[in-house]
Amino acid sequence: MTTTVESELDQLYADFARANMTPLWTQRDDLMTDFPKPQAVPFIWHWSTLYPLAQRAGELVPVGRGGERRAIALANPGLAGEPYATPTLWAAIQYLGPRETAPAHRHTQTAFRFVVEGDGVWTNVEGDAVAMRRGDLLLTPTWHFHEHHNPTDHPMAWVDGLDIPLISQLDAGFFEYGSTTLATTATPGVSNSERLWAHAGLRPVSAPVRPNSPLMAYRWADTNAALRDQLALEAEGRPGTVEPGHAAVRFYNPTTGADALRTIRLEMHRFAPGSAAATTQVVGSAVWTVFEGTGAVSVGEANWSVRAGDVFAVPSWAPVTITAHSELDIFRFSDDPVYEAFGLNKIERNGR
Amino acid sequence: MTTTVESELDQLYADFARANMTPLWTQRDDLMTDFPKPQAVPFIWHWSTLYPLAQRAGELVPVGRGGERRAIALANPGLAGEPYATPTLWAAIQYLGPRETAPAHRHTQTAFRFVVEGDGVWTNVEGDAVAMRRGDLLLTPTWHFHEHHNPTDHPMAWVDGLDIPLISQLDAGFFEYGSTTLATTATPGVSNSERLWAHAGLRPVSAPVRPNSPLMAYRWADTNAALRDQLALEAEGRPGTVEPGHAAVRFYNPTTGADALRTIRLEMHRFAPGSAAATTQVVGSAVWTVFEGTGAVSVGEANWSVRAGDVFAVPSWAPVTITAHSELDIFRFSDDPVYEAFGLNKIERNGR
Amino acid sequence: MTTTVESELDQLYADFARANMTPLWTQRDDLMTDFPKPQAVPFIWHWSTLYPLAQRAGELVPVGRGGERRAIALANPGLAGEPYATPTLWAAIQYLGPRETAPAHRHTQTAFRFVVEGDGVWTNVEGDAVAMRRGDLLLTPTWHFHEHHNPTDHPMAWVDGLDIPLISQLDAGFFEYGSTTLATTATPGVSNSERLWAHAGLRPVSAPVRPNSPLMAYRWADTNAALRDQLALEAEGRPGTVEPGHAAVRFYNPTTGADALRTIRLEMHRFAPGSAAATTQVVGSAVWTVFEGTGAVSVGEANWSVRAGDVFAVPSWAPVTITAHSELDIFRFSDDPVYEAFGLNKIERNGR
Amino acid sequence: MTTTVESELDQLYADFARANMTPLWTQRDDLMTDFPKPQAVPFIWHWSTLYPLAQRAGELVPVGRGGERRAIALANPGLAGEPYATPTLWAAIQYLGPRETAPAHRHTQTAFRFVVEGDGVWTNVEGDAVAMRRGDLLLTPTWHFHEHHNPTDHPMAWVDGLDIPLISQLDAGFFEYGSTTLATTATPGVSNSERLWAHAGLRPVSAPVRPNSPLMAYRWADTNAALRDQLALEAEGRPGTVEPGHAAVRFYNPTTGADALRTIRLEMHRFAPGSAAATTQVVGSAVWTVFEGTGAVSVGEANWSVRAGDVFAVPSWAPVTITAHSELDIFRFSDDPVYEAFGLNKIERNGR
Repeated sequence: MTTTVESELDQLYADFARANMTPLWTQRDDLMTDFPKPQAVPFIWHWSTLYPLAQRAGELVPVGRGGERRAIALANPGLAGEPYATPTLWAAIQYLGPRETAPAHRHTQTAFRFVVEGDGVWTNVEGDAVAMRRGDLLLTPTWHFHEHHNPTDHPMAWVDGLDIPLISQLDAGFFEYGSTTLATTATPGVSNSERLWAHAGLRPVSAPVRPNSPLMAYRWADTNAALRDQLALEAEGRPGTVEPGHAAVRFYNPTTGADALRTIRLEMHRFAPGSAAATTQVVGSAVWTVFEGTGAVSVGEANWSVRAGDVFAVPSWAPVTITAHSELDIFRFSDDPVYEAFGLNKIERNGR
Repeated sequence: MTTTVESELDQLYADFARANMTPLWTQRDDLMTDFPKPQAVPFIWHWSTLYPLAQRAGELVPVGRGGERRAIALANPGLAGEPYATPTLWAAIQYLGPRETAPAHRHTQTAFRFVVEGDGVWTNVEGDAVAMRRGDLLLTPTWHFHEHHNPTDHPMAWVDGLDIPLISQLDAGFFEYGSTTLATTATPGVSNSERLWAHAGLRPVSAPVRPNSPLMAYRWADTNAALRDQLALEAEGRPGTVEPGHAAVRFYNPTTGADALRTIRLEMHRFAPGSAAATTQVVGSAVWTVFEGTGAVSVGEANWSVRAGDVFAVPSWAPVTITAHSELDIFRFSDDPVYEAFGLNKIERNGR
Repeated sequence: MTTTVESELDQLYADFARANMTPLWTQRDDLMTDFPKPQAVPFIWHWSTLYPLAQRAGELVPVGRGGERRAIALANPGLAGEPYATPTLWAAIQYLGPRETAPAHRHTQTAFRFVVEGDGVWTNVEGDAVAMRRGDLLLTPTWHFHEHHNPTDHPMAWVDGLDIPLISQLDAGFFEYGSTTLATTATPGVSNSERLWAHAGLRPVSAPVRPNSPLMAYRWADTNAALRDQLALEAEGRPGTVEPGHAAVRFYNPTTGADALRTIRLEMHRFAPGSAAATTQVVGSAVWTVFEGTGAVSVGEANWSVRAGDVFAVPSWAPVTITAHSELDIFRFSDDPVYEAFGLNKIERNGR
Repeated sequence: MTTTVESELDQLYADFARANMTPLWTQRDDLMTDFPKPQAVPFIWHWSTLYPLAQRAGELVPVGRGGERRAIALANPGLAGEPYATPTLWAAIQYLGPRETAPAHRHTQTAFRFVVEGDGVWTNVEGDAVAMRRGDLLLTPTWHFHEHHNPTDHPMAWVDGLDIPLISQLDAGFFEYGSTTLATTATPGVSNSERLWAHAGLRPVSAPVRPNSPLMAYRWADTNAALRDQLALEAEGRPGTVEPGHAAVRFYNPTTGADALRTIRLEMHRFAPGSAAATTQVVGSAVWTVFEGTGAVSVGEANWSVRAGDVFAVPSWAPVTITAHSELDIFRFSDDPVYEAFGLNKIERNGR
C-alpha cells in the first residue's frame, strides 16, 4: 500500500512538473530560511591583482562604441559565473589610457566612480565636465548621459559601482547611445554642479527637489576634513563618531537629505590606528574599497589583511569585523536604501 | 602578430577568470539591454489543471510542521526551474482539507490570499480570526504570525501571493515557527481588524501609522460595489474608470493611502462585456487571476482564452491586451511599489 | 542723577515709539509666556439659544449674493469682538429655509458642515450633489466651488466649521463668486464622491493623491458603526478605544491616510454612559459639538451640563474633563494639523 | 411695517450680541476678501536710526534675567501697537556691550540672528559656542537653550528674527530659564555643529534626521561664494540664478533638504549692479535686511532708497520691486514654510 501511495506521489510530482508547478513543502526551508543564507560569499580582490590586469587590458583591448567601457567586473565566486560582486551590486575597475575616450551613453542603471589613485580623466555628465581625482566620488544618476575622456599622457584607473544586478533582476534596464563626439572638452577644476551645490547648507533658490543628488562630485579634501573633525570631536569627548575610533560620513542628496543615489548608499569610513570596530551584521550586501592605510578584516569565516585599492564583498547578514593597523579609510557602498524602502533593513552590533 | 595579440588576449581572459573578474565589453549589451528583456515568459495556468492537482495533493500529502503549507507554486517556464511566477513574485494554489490546520509561522516575506471559489477556512493573523470567502482578499504582512484552519467538512483552495523571489534575491529572509496550538478557534464573520479599520474614511484615533495595512480582510461585497459604482459613473459621463469599460480599484493601507502591502500592489479590475482595453506595457511584472467571466488575453506573443481561476504571468514590459466576452473580473498583483520607490516605474498605453 | 537717567530713559522710549520700535525687555514675559496663556476663554453656546436665533434670522434676513450665507458665528468673549470661536477656528450655525438657495462661491478658507439635526438640504461641491442628513459630516476643501439649496418644505440648520481666523491671520484669503444658477438640482442619496471613495480600503486606480480628502461626505451610519465596534472590542478586552469607555474616530483623507482637511482635524468621540475621561491638555484649540446624549464638561475653570447641539470652545492648553451621563457623542474639530506640521503639538493626559 | 421689521432686526442683532454670536452676512466681505488685504503695511527701518537707538539702550538699560535680552523690536505701524514686523514675524535689533552676557533660556519660538556688521559675540546654543561675525547666519531652533556673551571690549549689534507672532496667535509658547552661569566661555572659530555638519554633501553616519537644521552657523564666506558662483554660471549662459542678474540661496537643513527652520524661510539674495528684478507678489509676509550695496525698493505704494542695515517689512501679496544701484545683497526671512505646509502659498512674477 505504501508502494501505491509512493507511486501515486511520484505520479503527482510528475504531473506537477508537467503543469509547471512546484510543491512548496519539499523545499520550504530552502525558500524561506531562518535567516539570510546568501549564495554570494565573502571575497576580496587585491589591488595588486586588479591594477595590472586592467593595465594589460589597456594595452590589448580598445575602448569604444559597443563595448562602451574598458571595465572589468569583480565576480563573486558564489554567484555562479554572474559578473556581480553581490546579488544587487556591480563593482568594476575601469581603465582609460592616454588620449582615450569612452563614448557617451545613458541607462536606467545608477552609477558612481570612486578614485583610489591617480587623476587626469574628466567625466562629462549631461554635458558638465567633472574632474576625477584621488579620493573623489563622482556620480552618474539614472538616465544621465555620461562619457569619460583622458586628455593627459598617462593612464588612469578607478572603481565603478552600479546597481546592474538589481536592475537586471527587476527587468528594468533601458539603455541608449549618445553622441560619439564629446559634449565638451573643457577641463575645469570645478564642475558646474559643484558651483551650484557644493556650498554646505546652501541651496539655489531656483532649483527643485530631485530624487538623486544634483551634486556630481564629492571631493576628497571635504571628505577628509569631515572625518578628521569627527575624530577631533571624539577626542574632546563630544558625539559624532559611529563608535570609538570609527568616524563615518554618508554622501547625501542636498535636496532631500537622503542618500545621494536612490538605490545605492555611499559612505566613507575612517578607523583610527589601533581601533577595532564592533562586529556588525547588516541585512543587505555591501562592497568596501580600501582607500588608505592597512588593517585586518573578517567577513564571516574569511580573514584578510587589507591595503589601499583592495576591494571586498560583504554578503547579507555576514558579520564584519575591522581592525585598523594604521589610520584606515574605507569607502563603502551598499544597497541599504532598497531595504529601508521596504522595512527589510536590520542591523546588529556586537561590541567586544 | 595577430596571433600574438590573440594569444595575449586569451591569456588575459584566462587571468581574468582566475582572478574572479569578468570583462564588461564582451557582454555589455546582454547586461545593459536597450529595453527590458526578461527571462520570464508570458504563461498561463488554467484552473482546470490547478484545482485537480491541488485536490490530489490534498489526498496524498499531509500538511504540518516543516512543510508548513500544502501550497503548489506556479513556476514560470522561463525561470530555469525556480518556483517563481515572475522574478519578484510567487503565486501558488493552496489547499486545506476538512478539519485540517496549517500551523503558525511568520516570515519577513509579505503574503496575501485571494479566494477564487469556496469558503470555510479561517486564517488567524496575529491571533485575529479572519474568515476566507469567495472574492475576498486577506493580508499577511511581513513578520505577522499566521495559521490557517478549516473547521468545516469540505476542502477549500485559494491563491497565495508572496514576494518570495524578491526577498530571496535580496537575501532578506527571516523565518520563525509559531505555536502548533491554534491561537484561536473562533469563527467570527468579521475580524477584529475589520471592526477597527473597515469603515470608509474613519480611523481609530488610538492607532498609529503603519507601513503595511492594519486591515486584514477586503471583502468581495465592497470590491464589487466599488467596481459597479465606477462603471455606473462612467455611464453617466463622469470620471472614475481607468478607460472606457475598464473599472479598477487598488487595495490600500488606510493609515497612509499607499499600497496595502509595501512590496506588492493589489488591484481588482473589471472589464465591461465586449470592452477591449488599451494595450499596456509596464516596467515590472504582474500575476493576474481571473475571478469571474470570460475573455481573450494577449501577453507578448501569447494568446489565451481565459475563465474563472486561470492565473497568468506578465513579465516586465510585455504588452498586455484584454478583451472581455462577458463581464470580466481579474485580480492583479504586481511588484509596482518596488519600482515606484526608485523611479524605475514606466508605463505605456496604446489605444487601438 | 537718577532723575537724569530716568529722563534719558523716557526720552529713549519716546524715540523708540517715534521710530516704530518696541523694547522687548519691558514685555518679555507677556510675549513669551512660560506656557500658553490664551486670550480666548472656555465658552459654551447652547443649542436652545442657537437654534431659535437662527430661526428668527431665517424669518428676517434673506440669503443671497453678497452676504452669501445665513450663518451666525460663535464669538469667543475673550477675543475682543472678533467673530471667532478660537484664535484659529470659526464655528457658526447656518440656517436655510424651505426652497432657499445659498449661492455658489469658493475661497481658500477650508470648510465643513456637521449636521446636528434635520435633513433636506443638498450642498453641491464642484457640481457634485451631496445630501446633508443628521450626523453627517460634509466637506468643502479649500478653493472648491460650493452652494447649498433646500428643495424641501421645511427649514434646516447645521454647524459650519472653517479656518477663517487662521487664514485671516496669515493674510492668505482669496474669494470668488460662482454662478447664481445651481450647478445641479439633483437630489441623489449618494454623491459621486462617495461612489468613488466611500469603499473602505479601496481606491480608484485612476485617481491621484490629493492634499485634501476627495470624499465629500462621511455618513452617520458609518461613524456610528465604527464607534460601536470600538466599544465592543473594548468589552472583549481588545485594543481600539482611546481609553476605557472612550471611543473615537478621525475622519481621514483616503489618498494619504492623513487628516481629511489639511488645516482642520475632524473627530467623533463617544463616551460610554457613566464613563469619565482623563483630563487632557492639548496645545492648540478645539470646538466640540454635542451630537447626542448628556454629560458634564469642565474646561479650565468652567463647568457645564451639556446636551445635543451645545457647542463649546476649548482654548489652547486648557484642561478638559468629560463625564458622560448617558451615552455621549461629541464631534470635535481642531487645528491640530497646524501644530503637528511644525512640531508645536503637545498633549498631557492625567488619569484620575 | 418696515419699521417693525427693522426693529425686529435690531432686536435680533442685539440678541445675537447678548448670545456672543455675530452674523456673517454683515461682514462677509471683510472676513473673506477677494485677495489678501493685510493690516500690516510696507515699512522700512533705517540702520541709521536703529543702531544709534540700540547704542543708547546699551548705555541706559542693563541686560539680565527677566528682560533677558537688550532687543528692540521693529513694530509695523499697521499692526495696532503690536511689536511685530508682520503678522507672523518678529524682527529686532539686539545690542550687547563689552563684557556683557545675555542669560540662558529656551522657548518654543524659533529664532535666528543675522549679523549686519561687527563681531565679537559668541552665542552658546545647547552648550556649543558659536562665533557671530559679519554676514553670518546663526540659528536657535525651537526649545534649544541659548545665551550670548561678549568677551571683547567693543559692543556688537545684530538682527534677530523669530516667529513670536505666529506662536502667540497659535497660543503655543513655552518658555524656560536656564542657568545664569555661562555653559561655556570658549571662543572657538568653528562651532561643534559646523565640525559635524558644514561639509557639503556629507552627513555623519551617526546622526538621525532632525526637523530643524543641526547646523547652527552659516558663514558669510560660503554664502558669498555660492552667490558669486551663480552669477558666474549665468555669465556663461548656464542655469542657476532666479532670473537675470538675481542670484539667491536658501539656507537648508542638511538632514532633510528642507528649510533650515521649520517655520521660517531664510535666504540671501544678490542683485547685480544695474539689475532690476521682476515685480513679485507672494502670499505670506517677509522681512528683508540689506547687507551690502545700495538700491531702490518698492513695496506696494512705498518707495525707498536702501543701504546696508536697512530693514523693511513686506506684507502678504504686496508687490515687491528691487533695483540694484551697486551690487546689492539682501537677506530675506519669511513665513513661506507655513504656507507651503497647507497649500496656501502662491507667487506671481511680472517681468517688465
